[in-house]
Amino acid sequence: MKSFQQLTDELNSLKTGLFGRDFLLTWDKTEDDLRQTLLVADELKYLRDRNISTRCFDSGLAVSNFRDNSTRTRFSFASACNLLGLEVQDLDEAKSQIAHGETVRETANMISFLTDIIGIRDDMFLGEGHRYMLEMGAALDDGFSNGVLPQRPGIINLQCDIDHPTQSMADLLHLVNFYGGLDKLKGKKIAMTWAYSPSYGKPLSVPQGIIGLMTRFGMEVDLAFPEGYNLIPEVVDRAGRQAKASGGSFRVVNTMEEAFRDADIVYPKSWAPYAVMEQRTGLLKTGDKEGLKALEQECLANNARFINWECNEAMMKLTRDGNALYMHCLPADISGVSCARGEVSAGVFERYRIQTYKEAGFKPYIIAAMILNNRFEFASGILEVLYREGRSRVKRI
Amino acid sequence: MKSFQQLTDELNSLKTGLFGRDFLLTWDKTEDDLRQTLLVADELKYLRDRNISTRCFDSGLAVSNFRDNSTRTRFSFASACNLLGLEVQDLDEAKSQIAHGETVRETANMISFLTDIIGIRDDMFLGEGHRYMLEMGAALDDGFSNGVLPQRPGIINLQCDIDHPTQSMADLLHLVNFYGGLDKLKGKKIAMTWAYSPSYGKPLSVPQGIIGLMTRFGMEVDLAFPEGYNLIPEVVDRAGRQAKASGGSFRVVNTMEEAFRDADIVYPKSWAPYAVMEQRTGLLKTGDKEGLKALEQECLANNARFINWECNEAMMKLTRDGNALYMHCLPADISGVSCARGEVSAGVFERYRIQTYKEAGFKPYIIAAMILNNRFEFASGILEVLYREGRSRVKRI
Amino acid sequence: MKSFQQLTDELNSLKTGLFGRDFLLTWDKTEDDLRQTLLVADELKYLRDRNISTRCFDSGLAVSNFRDNSTRTRFSFASACNLLGLEVQDLDEAKSQIAHGETVRETANMISFLTDIIGIRDDMFLGEGHRYMLEMGAALDDGFSNGVLPQRPGIINLQCDIDHPTQSMADLLHLVNFYGGLDKLKGKKIAMTWAYSPSYGKPLSVPQGIIGLMTRFGMEVDLAFPEGYNLIPEVVDRAGRQAKASGGSFRVVNTMEEAFRDADIVYPKSWAPYAVMEQRTGLLKTGDKEGLKALEQECLANNARFINWECNEAMMKLTRDGNALYMHCLPADISGVSCARGEVSAGVFERYRIQTYKEAGFKPYIIAAMILNNRFEFASGILEVLYREGRSRVKRI
Repeated sequence: MKSFQQLTDELNSLKTGLFGRDFLLTWDKTEDDLRQTLLVADELKYLRDRNISTRCFDSGLAVSNFRDNSTRTRFSFASACNLLGLEVQDLDEAKSQIAHGETVRETANMISFLTDIIGIRDDMFLGEGHRYMLEMGAALDDGFSNGVLPQRPGIINLQCDIDHPTQSMADLLHLVNFYGGLDKLKGKKIAMTWAYSPSYGKPLSVPQGIIGLMTRFGMEVDLAFPEGYNLIPEVVDRAGRQAKASGGSFRVVNTMEEAFRDADIVYPKSWAPYAVMEQRTGLLKTGDKEGLKALEQECLANNARFINWECNEAMMKLTRDGNALYMHCLPADISGVSCARGEVSAGVFERYRIQTYKEAGFKPYIIAAMILNNRFEFASGILEVLYREGRSRVKRI
Repeated sequence: MKSFQQLTDELNSLKTGLFGRDFLLTWDKTEDDLRQTLLVADELKYLRDRNISTRCFDSGLAVSNFRDNSTRTRFSFASACNLLGLEVQDLDEAKSQIAHGETVRETANMISFLTDIIGIRDDMFLGEGHRYMLEMGAALDDGFSNGVLPQRPGIINLQCDIDHPTQSMADLLHLVNFYGGLDKLKGKKIAMTWAYSPSYGKPLSVPQGIIGLMTRFGMEVDLAFPEGYNLIPEVVDRAGRQAKASGGSFRVVNTMEEAFRDADIVYPKSWAPYAVMEQRTGLLKTGDKEGLKALEQECLANNARFINWECNEAMMKLTRDGNALYMHCLPADISGVSCARGEVSAGVFERYRIQTYKEAGFKPYIIAAMILNNRFEFASGILEVLYREGRSRVKRI
Repeated sequence: MKSFQQLTDELNSLKTGLFGRDFLLTWDKTEDDLRQTLLVADELKYLRDRNISTRCFDSGLAVSNFRDNSTRTRFSFASACNLLGLEVQDLDEAKSQIAHGETVRETANMISFLTDIIGIRDDMFLGEGHRYMLEMGAALDDGFSNGVLPQRPGIINLQCDIDHPTQSMADLLHLVNFYGGLDKLKGKKIAMTWAYSPSYGKPLSVPQGIIGLMTRFGMEVDLAFPEGYNLIPEVVDRAGRQAKASGGSFRVVNTMEEAFRDADIVYPKSWAPYAVMEQRTGLLKTGDKEGLKALEQECLANNARFINWECNEAMMKLTRDGNALYMHCLPADISGVSCARGEVSAGVFERYRIQTYKEAGFKPYIIAAMILNNRFEFASGILEVLYREGRSRVKRI
């Protein structure tokens, strides 16, 4: 465990451009940006674990805009905001309406007069979520530069169609803690593989987020999926380039077995094929219920051909010393528990259950770090002030 | 821009009765009451713009009770409460039930044990919204005087069937800022006119709020609407009397053109005819869906006769120097953008878009001022304390 | 009215085990535990009434999990959390999913990373609510002991199938205030009786909570209900044993008249028969709508046989000096007001209306006391610190 001073020194050695910039895609950020995000998360956790308040807003709003259901991320965002002193106000579109471009521009301003941060989840439609966030950002720029907004609220991507940076960064922080340092990840093999699930339409953002992030730190990244379950090509290409640049590797393979072989880390997780997500987006937009039903049947039937893509004891035996670290963004489809056959056998999941919970536990800190870096030019300075003040989070006698 | 001391001196020169009184209708308030509301809003903005915390509650609840959909006002109320340190708890009647008089009396008390302020929107039914707020207020008086409540929470009207004081006061503050003072409004001509919209059932509270407020400051107020689109007669009568008393004028005219001629300010906005709102109230109460559908058809057909009531370049040319200030409570129905033909042409709206956003941006401060004046006998004293303490809203190194 | 010092001295004389323990059933708590809960509630009220802030959390989340509708308890919980400085985040299961045991275990952890307290209402199904809370608690223990959670959040039962401790404890505090001390309740007769209502399926937790709590303080407790309207047998047995141990009495009688005779306090309230609730639970689980409709008809018909179980003037005449204190958890079914015939006549209710509101007003303080006792080992010490600091809740000039 590093001391607060060590974390601060590390922070001070970085040159970052996080201040005032939205956090939408990890690959838009420099390595120093990502390091700072991890370090600030560590410092926030360090302080809270010692009952030191990390409140740096006396008042201020954080807007959450969930365009898809969420429990984990909703609570993580609420926790992160509360940790810093921001109050969450949910933009419930059922109780208002955001329709076309015009109104996004207007709504962005109307919710932002006294707002410091906006967290958005929009992962249902390929080609939409990221675009929506960019549009929201442009509207905020417009409002700020025209004197409508006294501050330009930052945007945090809480999952879009392309990336899921709060998840992948929490996963990365879990690995950093598990192995004892970011530099320890160099050369470690991670298998990001498709896995069978009796459901359909799961977003691509988690596997894309993982290959888009883990290839930046010299890891050996294997992506495995059955024929047809491709990800967005640009993201896959980027992963390859990044692996080369960071001194690691990136391969696409066709079986779970090949990806698992000698892996240090495995991340088996279901997703829908890119082409299906595109079709689905079209059907959802036209409200074609018959078409959606037919597509679902087709997909489930197709999924069923790959029921053996299950992370079980036999699969785990293939990994380094039969002892790879199992990861999942949760909830996992667990065979015999949440479904007859799923992504992972009950035994394997149970062995790593606590680890997956710890993995999830980094998310509130990662989100809080993203917020803090967005709002404060000198994050390490603010954290030092909090440390020195040493105000109790929970009152003491 | 006035200094804080100037604002304080102005405040101290007023004799007001805002403390402990609900803010339901602007015309129940004295001119000094309204001036104080504007000044306190200015001071709150002054402080926040300088990163000085305006938190004057260490804890405390604010209840919001939206009986109709809302985005702008919901966020404005949440922002205002957060600015002062109150936490919003929404009374979602779908998850409870407020039925007849008896239960309003009870619910009013049940939600108020530790509550400082209650914001209510109830604008659907003519003859209901304002009455509901009075009933709620009487129930709170009863609870307070009987020792049930340790404080008598204040009520803020967030839009009723008669008035929309947070909107009209924000509009007024916009004008005060635009022209450089409340006294500068004397003699300015404002055209509050009906405008075409392909929708139906829009409340009357905005135009009523505007003519009920702007006639108090010596403005030349023209109200224009097509035959049949009358407002509540009592409000129109009051506007006339007020205009006379304040040294301004008030006219009802029959064309947009006449109202726009030489206007300094135009406020073109659709609303439903008073008689239709009355019919609709009856049909809604009896749940007569067929009747509602028929009424809607009839109304839209009637609206269509006035499709030329559009605020466009030709109309704007009629105004003073062709350069009147365009106002709207938003969202506007914009021709070619949010509908084929609407209240305003795309070009006119775009030219004034930023101004309408700024107009909306005063609402959180107006609401916060209403709350502060309701809770603190010496508002200027509290604001001075906040100013002198100078606590940072966002932490500084 | 006791002084703060007196309350503190009383508190310091107790030996309690509330710290770190969930508050699920009053009968799992010692008499000292219950006394401390009452005293802490009194101290919190003492401080707030004098505008002294009772904020003891600088940040922190409280999760509310309402599996059934609620207004009173929702606002009481929100008020209590706000009073202490915790922010409520609602776990809305419609926007997530908690299905079987596995997921409760996972969700419990996912919502708790930065959470201090969890309030749960789950009163729909016999045999389920209490079990759900135990399961949630075990999951939190597991997460905390495995290092997933940095703290073990406490659980407050906001009503289950067995007990409703925040209600019964607020009722008790009302009696303590009404009679001037807990010792004054010794020998007082309380009639907890069934009453007619034209509704069906009301939970058993209020009458069970009342007989399970009031029998601990030497009161004479009469439970009355028509044939077939039994409560859970274990709770009734326990009430008998407790009455004996505390030097009071406990009787089950068959008429409202018998229970009311010479009663100091009456608590007439409708509930569904235990056997019906069991049948209903089965039908709800299998989604048998026809069966539910038939059961409802049968029940309402059965209820109607006991329409004379109404608390009216004639009934009240039977009580001690015709002047018993009427209690109700609200909302009551009032004859001629909320229904044609109900639990209580309009006249009787109106005479005691303010008393029932005051009764309800203790709930926020009782919940806050439960939270404070759960989180702080030395509650009286924390309260003394707050008292000495004397920070204003509402700013003063």
